[in-house]
This record gives sequence, structure tokens and C-alpha cells, in this order.
Amino acid sequence: MSLLVVGSVALDTVKTPFGAVHDILGGSASYFSISASFFTEVHLVAVVGKDFPPDYRDIFLEKGIRTEGLQTKDGETFRWKGHYDFDLNDAKTDATMLNVFGGFDPVLSESSRNCSEVFLANIDPVLQLRVLKQVKNPRIVACDTMNYWIETRRKELLRLLTKVDLFFLNDAEARQLAEEPMLTKAARKISAMGPKMVIIKKGEHGALMFVNGVFSPLPAFSLEEVFDPTGAGDSFAGGTMGFLAQSKKLHAKAFRRAMGYGTVLASFAVEKFSLQRLLSLTREDIEERYRTFSRKLVI
Amino acid sequence: MSLLVVGSVALDTVKTPFGAVHDILGGSASYFSISASFFTEVHLVAVVGKDFPPDYRDIFLEKGIRTEGLQTKDGETFRWKGHYDFDLNDAKTDATMLNVFGGFDPVLSESSRNCSEVFLANIDPVLQLRVLKQVKNPRIVACDTMNYWIETRRKELLRLLTKVDLFFLNDAEARQLAEEPMLTKAARKISAMGPKMVIIKKGEHGALMFVNGVFSPLPAFSLEEVFDPTGAGDSFAGGTMGFLAQSKKLHAKAFRRAMGYGTVLASFAVEKFSLQRLLSLTREDIEERYRTFSRKLVI
Repeated sequence: MSLLVVGSVALDTVKTPFGAVHDILGGSASYFSISASFFTEVHLVAVVGKDFPPDYRDIFLEKGIRTEGLQTKDGETFRWKGHYDFDLNDAKTDATMLNVFGGFDPVLSESSRNCSEVFLANIDPVLQLRVLKQVKNPRIVACDTMNYWIETRRKELLRLLTKVDLFFLNDAEARQLAEEPMLTKAARKISAMGPKMVIIKKGEHGALMFVNGVFSPLPAFSLEEVFDPTGAGDSFAGGTMGFLAQSKKLHAKAFRRAMGYGTVLASFAVEKFSLQRLLSLTREDIEERYRTFSRKLVI
Repeated sequence: MSLLVVGSVALDTVKTPFGAVHDILGGSASYFSISASFFTEVHLVAVVGKDFPPDYRDIFLEKGIRTEGLQTKDGETFRWKGHYDFDLNDAKTDATMLNVFGGFDPVLSESSRNCSEVFLANIDPVLQLRVLKQVKNPRIVACDTMNYWIETRRKELLRLLTKVDLFFLNDAEARQLAEEPMLTKAARKISAMGPKMVIIKKGEHGALMFVNGVFSPLPAFSLEEVFDPTGAGDSFAGGTMGFLAQSKKLHAKAFRRAMGYGTVLASFAVEKFSLQRLLSLTREDIEERYRTFSRKLVI
């Protein structure tokens, strides 16, 4: 089993009430692939500029992530600049510099085309469709999106959704896409657009899964110290998809357990700046928190 | 085991996007006592006016609720008028007419003073303290409050909290009382004010319990139709305290299960206007939803 992710690899400049970092490794595909790498082989498809530090490329290699699809192009790497005030749920974007990402047009290698699971991270739905066309016979196709694409690429996004099994999006995006304030109703409406499974991410409030007409809510793992929420959603998706990729059978229980692992990865991701905590993590750390979380959920 | 509740019995006029009702039975003590009555004997302490319909008094009697403490005074019953827009999380108060509730000064009967559990619903902390003084030797003292008392009776509320075991409050109130945006940190700060156990109610996002330094999150039971959210928090507290009152041992598991029953009662309460759904409910309906909810939580 191997898991393909296409998305952004970025250099992030982030300020939170607890500190600041400059040009540090970020991007949806980075958080996703490192989170998923604890469970399965990950093929990373993204683009960076000539300025991308070799150390950062090594980070992926050390995690066993396949980087043949990580192209280097003339120009600068995609940059995101943002900050959080004390309400850490609300990321404020100060600047987005697409740079080489503007001309991103991924061509998949033979091994990437054979991946059994696919995650189309938050990029232009036109690109998501183009990548999906190249994959041969995936077992699960998942995607993410954002408000900007819902507004500007609605038609293409709706076309993509007819080809997607599992759709990750956050609560505000779900309300916006479904034009429905109530999340349960929004999930059902979105599922009718194509994806058999919808997972609505609610940040500190956890996630809500809708599969086969059944709602399955999961709280977040309670933390007292959140350092930097950047990448929480992609780490959640990475943990979820990573676990699914190594699951032989895809019954309802597997999806629920997968969402549990996603929650655990997200909870680690926010404990330090950037990918720092994920990179110091062991599989045993993950299993230990999973067990704690699992015990907490019993009523 | 018997459970004392002191709070409001009101006539509510409510408008939601789905309909409207006029002068219908409401109030914190009504929702609480009917929810708790499925589990234990409830002693209701409140005040109504001469205009209080005898049919509404019969509702309590039919549920086996002890009403010796439900005084009738000259004047009109407490009235609350409010509405909800499509965002059902946000109750908008249009009018509050205290009427006879303004002079409420409860004197407990002998049997009420002997109750093993006490719930001081959301009323003036001065009154909550006065009631508590009359109770002989309670096993659990619980209370609720609201933003208004946090602002205007902070000193009295803090004095009350030193005498309380279990404190129910919603997320906004927790942030306000602790002066802390992060709910986990707020819960710990509030626990340091006195209550060994703090349960923060988060509406559609469930609840967060803090006991013995451990956080225990619980999602809400997912509903697609919410008709009238009035009383959800008091029904939650009623289910929780009702279950605790009939629990022989008060270990961590009992509190978690109690919160599960609270969640189930709250989920029923919002399915129809006023107390309609709670009044048509059977213990078997509750157990069935509890089993469903419990299965959903497994990861």
C-alpha cells in the first residue's frame, strides 16, 4: 500500500502569541506526508524553488518519503506568511507568494501513478482533477479544499467531488459549500455531491464524519498548550489517510480508528512551531496517546 | 438518593425559524427536574405566580417530582421571551420579566434539606448560597451560572464556588470567569477557585469535563433537526446529576457515564419545542440512544 499526496511544500513565516519563525518548512503536503509516514509509504508530489534548503528535502528522505515527485523549478519557493492572536482557532494570512507554485503542473512518475490511496491537498481543483486523471486504479481518493476555491472554482470543485471517496473540509467551508448553517445537514448535502464519506474538521472541537448516512463525531484531544495551530488540519488528514492506507479492510471501524489517529497527529502537530514536534515523534508516542485518547472516549 | 434543584420555573415565549410558542412551560428548574426524573427522585424548589396553569404543575407530579417546594405567590410567573435565527447556537433574549421571581427567597422543607445531591441552577449567587446553607449533608453540590452574575455578583459567585463540587457553565462563561481564551486553561483556573469538577458545555460541540487534573471531552449527539435549543444546557445538567444521584460509587467512570446521559437528554430536549419531547420520552428511549451514542464513540 502506498499513499500519494499532491499539495504545497512551502516556507512559512508565522507569528503566534508564543513566538515567531521565519521561512520554516511548511505547506499542506509537508504536514500531510510527515504525519502519514508513520503508517505507510508516502509519495510526495509538489514543487519548490532553487532556494529550497537541502536540509528540508532531507527531512522527507529521513522519514522514508518518496520525493521523486518533488520538483525543483527556477524561482523561489511558495511562501506563506501569517499570524495568530490569542484565539488560536483563527489563522490570519498576511501574505501568500505563490512563486514557483504558480506554474505547478505535476506529471506523476510510474510508481506514483500506481499508488493505492490518493490525497489531493488544498490546491486549485483544476490541478486536483489533472493529477487524479493520471492515477491508475486508486482504492481511496481523498481531497481537501478551501474557501477561495469554493468561491472561484465551484464548477471544477463540484466536478472533482463526483470522483472523490473521502472529502476533508473545515466547518466554515462545509457551511459555505452546502449553503447550510447546520453542519449535519451540510455534511449530508455535500455527500450527495459525490463523496461517500465526508469529514468536517472543527479545530479544537474535533471532527464530524458522515459515512453511509451515519454521523460519527469525535472530539479533539484536549491540550493545555497550543503553540502553533498551522498544519493541524493537514496532519489530521495525514494521520487518517496514513492509517487507512495500511488497513486491509475498509469497514466503518477502520474509518473511525483512522480519524482517531488523525486526531492524535493533529494534537502533536500544534505542540510546537512548524513540523518540530512531528519530527521528534516516534510511533510509540503516537500509540501511547492513541490509547489515552481511546480510553478517554468511553462512556 | 434524592436530588434537590432550585431554579426558575417560567413561562417562555420562543420563536425559532421553525415555529413559535407562547407562554409555554420553561425555566432552568423545569428542564433540569424533568430530565433528572428519569433517574432519581427530584425535589423542585421554585416560585410561580397565581397565573401558573395547574396543568403545568401536574406535569411535574406525573413525573414523580416532589413539588412541596414549588411556591405560589401573588403576582405573575417569571416570563422569558427569546428567539433564535438560523444559527441555533445563539439564543437572543427579547425580554425577561422576573415578576414573582424577583422576591424569591426559598425556605427548604425538611425532606428537601435531607437531599443527597443539590443542583443550584442559574439564579443569583446570593440565593444559591442561601439555599445551600439550608441543606444538611449533601454528597454532591453542583451549580450553574450565567454571564450576568459573573459581571454583577463576582464576589458572591466566587464564595459559592468554594462550596461547590461540580460546576456546570458554558464556554463563553468559562472564558469570561477565568479571563482566559483557551478552554482547557480556563477549566483548570476555575477548578482552582473551588469546584473539584468542572463541566464546560459547548452546545453542538459537546462538553469538556475537568476532574482530578484530567480533561475528558465528549462530543454532542449529532442531530439533523434541531427545533428549539432552549433548555439544552439544563437538560444536560439534569441527565448528568440524575444519573449521579442514583450512582452508588462516584468514580471517574460514573462521571463520564453521567455526562453521556446528560448529552442524551439534551439531544432529546432540542428535538421539539419546550419540554414536549422530554415529556413523551421513556427510559427505554434514553437507554437506546445512550447505547447508540456509546457505540459511536469507540475508536
